[in-house]
Amino acid sequence: MIIFETEIRVWYVDTDQMGIVHHSNYIKYYEEARSAFMRHLGVSYADMEASGVLMPILHVESDYKRSARYDDLLTVRIIIKDLPMARFVAGYEVYNAARELLNTGSTTLGFLNKATMRPCRAPEWFVEMLQCEMDKNNNNE
Amino acid sequence: MIIFETEIRVWYVDTDQMGIVHHSNYIKYYEEARSAFMRHLGVSYADMEASGVLMPILHVESDYKRSARYDDLLTVRIIIKDLPMARFVAGYEVYNAARELLNTGSTTLGFLNKATMRPCRAPEWFVEMLQCEMDKNNNNE
Amino acid sequence: MIIFETEIRVWYVDTDQMGIVHHSNYIKYYEEARSAFMRHLGVSYADMEASGVLMPILHVESDYKRSARYDDLLTVRIIIKDLPMARFVAGYEVYNAARELLNTGSTTLGFLNKATMRPCRAPEWFVEMLQCEMDKNNNNE
Amino acid sequence: MIIFETEIRVWYVDTDQMGIVHHSNYIKYYEEARSAFMRHLGVSYADMEASGVLMPILHVESDYKRSARYDDLLTVRIIIKDLPMARFVAGYEVYNAARELLNTGSTTLGFLNKATMRPCRAPEWFVEMLQCEMDKNNNNE
Repeated sequence: MIIFETEIRVWYVDTDQMGIVHHSNYIKYYEEARSAFMRHLGVSYADMEASGVLMPILHVESDYKRSARYDDLLTVRIIIKDLPMARFVAGYEVYNAARELLNTGSTTLGFLNKATMRPCRAPEWFVEMLQCEMDKNNNNE
Repeated sequence: MIIFETEIRVWYVDTDQMGIVHHSNYIKYYEEARSAFMRHLGVSYADMEASGVLMPILHVESDYKRSARYDDLLTVRIIIKDLPMARFVAGYEVYNAARELLNTGSTTLGFLNKATMRPCRAPEWFVEMLQCEMDKNNNNE
Repeated sequence: MIIFETEIRVWYVDTDQMGIVHHSNYIKYYEEARSAFMRHLGVSYADMEASGVLMPILHVESDYKRSARYDDLLTVRIIIKDLPMARFVAGYEVYNAARELLNTGSTTLGFLNKATMRPCRAPEWFVEMLQCEMDKNNNNE
Repeated sequence: MIIFETEIRVWYVDTDQMGIVHHSNYIKYYEEARSAFMRHLGVSYADMEASGVLMPILHVESDYKRSARYDDLLTVRIIIKDLPMARFVAGYEVYNAARELLNTGSTTLGFLNKATMRPCRAPEWFVEMLQCEMDKNNNNE
C-alpha cells in the first residue's frame, strides 16, 4: 500500500455563498494530490502524456463529512492499494489543520494510447515506480 | 419518478489540455441541473436558503463514458425517484447533441437548519412541490 | 460597430463567501459571449482552431460596479468597434435582469499560426464575416 | 514600496485545450497572492471580514506575455506602492521557474462596511501593518 500526503491551501475563489468550500473543488484536490504524488515519484503527469499515454478518468466519488473554509491548510492523503493494470484506483482522505476528517473519496483512471485513442495497459515504467514506492513503504513499517 | 432535462453549453474554460471537458465540470453540471429544475418548479434554491434551510452535499459520484468537447450543447437529465425525507437523492445522465450518453452520476444532499446548523427534514413545501411534479409526470405517461 | 447580446445564468458554484459572483467569473462570461457571438456568425471558435489559427488573449480588463447573485439571468453585451487586423478588440457590458449595469470590460486577442506558433493576421474569412455583420447592423440603424 | 512573492503550482484543471493555463486563472493567482501576503503579515483576509470590513474588487487588468503550462511552479510577485485610503491598489508579476515574465497585472479593491454595506476607509490596523512592512522593506534596501 502507498500512502502519500500533500498540503493544499483553500483559495477564496473556492468558497461559495454557504461560506464553505464548494464541493466540486474536492475533485480538483484529488487530481492535484495525484499530481503531487507523481512529482514525488520524480515524474510528471506531463511526462506520461509526452510518452503517449493519456489517463482519462472513469469514475469518481466523494463523501462530504465536514466543511473546509477559506485559508484552511488541508492535507490530502492519497491511498493506493493495488498496482495498476488496465485501471488505476486511488483513495483519498482530506483533513483540516485540526486533523479532522472532512472528506473521503476515490478515483478510477484508465490508460489510453494517445495515437490510437484506444485503452491500453499502464506503462511498465509507471507500474515499476509504484512497485518501488510500495516496497519503500513496506520497509518503513 | 420525475425526469427533467436542461441544456448546458460547454465553455472554452471548461476544457483541459486533453482537449475535452475536465471531469470536475460534470459535478457543476449536476448542480446547475438541480438549479434549473428548481426554477422549473417555480422556486429557487435561493428561496430555500432564504427560508432558513441549507442543502449541503453529502455524496456525489460520476461515471465517465465519453468525452464532451468545447461548444457542445449538452442535455443534462435529472432523475428523482423518491420524495426526500432527511436526504434528497438525484440521478443524472448527460448527453451530447448526437444523443450519445457521456456521463451518469448521482448526488445525495441533506437538509440543514441554517439557524441551528443541525440536520433537519426536507421542508414540507418542497416535498409537496415534488409530489405534485411526480403526479404530473405519472399522468403524462 | 457590432453589438451582440447573450444571456448567461449565474451558477451556484460561481458565488463566493461574500454571497456574490466571484470577480474572476466575468472573465469567463466575456469569453462565452465571444463564443456565443461566433455561433451567431455561423462559425465556432473550434472552426478557427481547426483552420490552424489560435486566438491567445493579450489583455483583459474589468470594472466592477454592482454585484451579481446566484440564479441571476445576466445579459452580456459584446461591442466590436473595429475590424481585426493583428488584434481583435472587444468591449463588454454585463447587465442583470433589472437592466442594471454590473460590469464593463474589454479584451484584446491576437492571432497565432498554430503550425509556426507565430503571430499572424486575422483570417480573411473572419474579417469578412465581421464586415458583413457590421453592414447588417448599420442597415438596421 | 512592498514586494512580496509567493509560489503557485499550476494544476491540470487550469489548462485548456490550447494546452496552456486558461487566462482567467491569473485573476485567481492575483487573489491568492494577496491572501499569501496577508498570511505573511500575520492576519488573514478572513480576519478582515470578521472585523466587519469587506474588500470588494473594483478593477482588474492583466497582460499576457507568455504561457504557463501544467505543473509549472509559478512565482507571483505582488507590488504595493501606496498605503490604502479608500482603495487598495496592487501590481502583479508572474514568473515561471526559468524566471521568464509571463504576465503582469493590477487590482484595485475598495473597503466596505459589512453592516451598512457602504464604502469606508481602510481599517487603521491594516494601514499600520502595511506601513510597518514598508519600513522593513526600506531598511532592507
